[in-house]
Amino acid sequence: MNANVTVPQNGKPHLLTARRLGIQTIQEAQIFMRKDCHVCKSEGFATHARVLVAHEDRTIVANLYQVTSELVGIDEVGFSESAWQKLGLKDLDKVTISHPPPLESLSAVRGKVYGRNLDFESLSQIVSDIAAGRYSNIQLSAFITACAAKPLDHDEICALTRAMVETGDRIDWNRKPIVDKHCVGGLPGNRTTPIVVAIVAACGLTIPKTSSRAITSPAGTADTMETMAPIDLDIPNMRRVVEQEGGCIVWGGAARLSPTDDMLIQVEHVLDLDGEGQLVASILSKKIAAGATHLLLDLPVGATAKVRSKQAADTLSRSLIAVGEAFGLTVRTVMTDGMQPVGRGIGPALEAMNVLDVLQTKPAAPQDLRERSLLLAGQILELGGAASEGHGLSLAIETLDSGRAWRKFQRICEAQGGMRTPRVAAHHRSVTASGAGLVAHLDNRRLAKVAKLAGAPEDKAAGLELHVSLGERVAARQPLYTIHADSPGELSYALAYARANADIIGLVEP
Amino acid sequence: MNANVTVPQNGKPHLLTARRLGIQTIQEAQIFMRKDCHVCKSEGFATHARVLVAHEDRTIVANLYQVTSELVGIDEVGFSESAWQKLGLKDLDKVTISHPPPLESLSAVRGKVYGRNLDFESLSQIVSDIAAGRYSNIQLSAFITACAAKPLDHDEICALTRAMVETGDRIDWNRKPIVDKHCVGGLPGNRTTPIVVAIVAACGLTIPKTSSRAITSPAGTADTMETMAPIDLDIPNMRRVVEQEGGCIVWGGAARLSPTDDMLIQVEHVLDLDGEGQLVASILSKKIAAGATHLLLDLPVGATAKVRSKQAADTLSRSLIAVGEAFGLTVRTVMTDGMQPVGRGIGPALEAMNVLDVLQTKPAAPQDLRERSLLLAGQILELGGAASEGHGLSLAIETLDSGRAWRKFQRICEAQGGMRTPRVAAHHRSVTASGAGLVAHLDNRRLAKVAKLAGAPEDKAAGLELHVSLGERVAARQPLYTIHADSPGELSYALAYARANADIIGLVEP
Repeated sequence: MNANVTVPQNGKPHLLTARRLGIQTIQEAQIFMRKDCHVCKSEGFATHARVLVAHEDRTIVANLYQVTSELVGIDEVGFSESAWQKLGLKDLDKVTISHPPPLESLSAVRGKVYGRNLDFESLSQIVSDIAAGRYSNIQLSAFITACAAKPLDHDEICALTRAMVETGDRIDWNRKPIVDKHCVGGLPGNRTTPIVVAIVAACGLTIPKTSSRAITSPAGTADTMETMAPIDLDIPNMRRVVEQEGGCIVWGGAARLSPTDDMLIQVEHVLDLDGEGQLVASILSKKIAAGATHLLLDLPVGATAKVRSKQAADTLSRSLIAVGEAFGLTVRTVMTDGMQPVGRGIGPALEAMNVLDVLQTKPAAPQDLRERSLLLAGQILELGGAASEGHGLSLAIETLDSGRAWRKFQRICEAQGGMRTPRVAAHHRSVTASGAGLVAHLDNRRLAKVAKLAGAPEDKAAGLELHVSLGERVAARQPLYTIHADSPGELSYALAYARANADIIGLVEP
Repeated sequence: MNANVTVPQNGKPHLLTARRLGIQTIQEAQIFMRKDCHVCKSEGFATHARVLVAHEDRTIVANLYQVTSELVGIDEVGFSESAWQKLGLKDLDKVTISHPPPLESLSAVRGKVYGRNLDFESLSQIVSDIAAGRYSNIQLSAFITACAAKPLDHDEICALTRAMVETGDRIDWNRKPIVDKHCVGGLPGNRTTPIVVAIVAACGLTIPKTSSRAITSPAGTADTMETMAPIDLDIPNMRRVVEQEGGCIVWGGAARLSPTDDMLIQVEHVLDLDGEGQLVASILSKKIAAGATHLLLDLPVGATAKVRSKQAADTLSRSLIAVGEAFGLTVRTVMTDGMQPVGRGIGPALEAMNVLDVLQTKPAAPQDLRERSLLLAGQILELGGAASEGHGLSLAIETLDSGRAWRKFQRICEAQGGMRTPRVAAHHRSVTASGAGLVAHLDNRRLAKVAKLAGAPEDKAAGLELHVSLGERVAARQPLYTIHADSPGELSYALAYARANADIIGLVEP
């Protein structure tokens, strides 16, 4: 008798009818059953029990919530959206609910809490259990916290990286080098990627860039890029674009590269906590799975950026290079200024407009975005062998200023499905300086919050446009930034927050 | 303008209609809102956002789940049971939803993860945020994991204990000594409390015992006691019983003593993880709040008990005594055998029958339960000054064998609302030995699981009755234990698990 299948005395499993409740849970699968239903009673299930849900040949592990109302019928099981989709259900499908096998890998997590190192076998089991949805959010939180409290050593980071790579798909490009870039989070508006990819691909290197959508920020590179071209390309289409143009800028979520990474990030964001080892494994596993051979990492350093000191950047940098080496991936890191946003726009369309201005070499283009893109592109050109050491930057400048990068960008957009023009929001309002002064600091995190309250990234045109930068002298009532929103309500809410947080842009006596 | 209240441009907060969904979540408050409702859009709320829900003068923080179906209307908010009750809602009540204030105390938790000690101020803020429901399960999990990975030192344990005491109510008995006992979890059937309270109270000491219901075990002392008398007494009624009889055995949940403790325990059980410091604070905060001055702690030690080695028991014991001292609470610990269950019954009514047999000094009473109860009672009699050192045990024996303890127990039950007779379950089935042998080990955890699958503790009569103990010689097909259940389905499921786990009771060649 199989202890994992509900078998009552007559020997047939209890079948219950699936009902779609349309509840969004991001990733955690949830089901809803009547407290007085015969399965809850006979299986001894209580609220928060982890249960195995089976439909035909698919199974998932879900969190059970008991219901004491008519929300679901006595012979029904209500499903959250993620649970419904993972099981591939249709209305009136029949499912069985039973006890899941014990989550053995949790004992390795407990071991880590008490100071035992994790070996590849344990990490592999933890990661595949996470990928299969067998960890609840409470358990994911314990894993993340344990790895931050008892930092992963080099061997553990390599093992975690390998486990994360092996859980998902991998892309083989059948050529070398494959260059790639990544920016270690936290800086609003730092949208160098489309510019860098255009320059690098125009110089003949292969740069198949996958980017993410925003999780807690007002725009991810994928959100920004989507205002200029389609980004939901599957791997065959991505391959077609890259073979044709040498580069692409697509959303990584369509490919299944290191799928556990996103699941961990969701919980890390709630805690505002990510251990260095997990950060390294997170970054490198995606790049290794995407087939990169040479990777440039942009590490913005600043008080309100993700990496807060040069010392933290050095330690992180050493770990990234050493772990990359273990996988045959050449990693180079560049520390950049993380004291203030890059460019003027914060929000998908507003950032895209800055990108287009730089690519089109308009005089009004934000110089900081131009310079940082050129710096990064120059480094990649050297790393990938398109320029000798010390000559990358001049090649990058030449490629941008000659219009070759802009033409390459347009061709990439066309290959991805057609170029688009970023939209301008319907409502704008400026936030002004209360008095005269010098701009002494900008709070990246709270600026991001204003942009999000205005509707970014869901409303592509929403966000804010900065008018000042560090060290600039401003007069009283001079506009500091302008909020863009698609509805008066969002504009009003962002404005209320901005006014209640007048020190987001800090002014001092000149 | 108050940033914590939803204020659209016209200046009036958005009112939404409350709807009770009857979803059980134990403690985490959840609300359900349409993804396309104006509040989600204007406030920029996404699924899993923590939101502030206000109704008249009450507010709670809840987890938001967005809904893309007709589960709730566009002007409605659906509530889980706990959220509904905390806000004291009635159907059609109006509520407002807005951004909660930032959870500042989470930065102290992050500090602990990175190795900074927690001071009283931080712990006090963390504990009061937890008590107010401002921590999500993910955040609770991080706090618990951090305190296990970076063990709390003596000062931190004292500060946590004080913070937990101060968050709830305290009882002052206006007399001394107040004796109390507690067993540090994990041993099925170890139901000494009713016997110990009866002996100790019969000897004139004051022992106002509050007990808990089962969380993951097949019976808590409160569940067992409930089959013999009412246990849901509020503090005035508890005081009346104790003033009249010198002792009581009531459910602690009716009094609000150290309320955060239960919230932490719920998450600890999902993780099967509790740090020593948290365990000490958890035990002592409840006893200090309940007004105890002298406390005896029973520490069962065994491979499948909570405390697994003598060394672990020693460390725990030292910490309990030292922290108790800091609060003027005299703590004595007794290590007992945790290798096998105590008594024969596992499950509320089956354990109660063992208790009654011991109290009535029946020859068939389980001797291990009798002896352990006498040992503990003797220690408490010495601790509380009712017997001189070395004479507690003989006084306990005399009090039990003379019938005085049994008469005291009956009077306590009457004072609590009337004595009851434990019920016998409708269905029984024995699990037999596959071959002859000596009983070499009993798995406490899996025996508890069989009892739970049979319906304990919700079905009071369900559980199992053990027929063998360690070192006993059994013949082939001899019954090892009998499963009791109220329905054929539960009996069948428990039996299937028992058969698939034949090594729960391990036999070796004699």
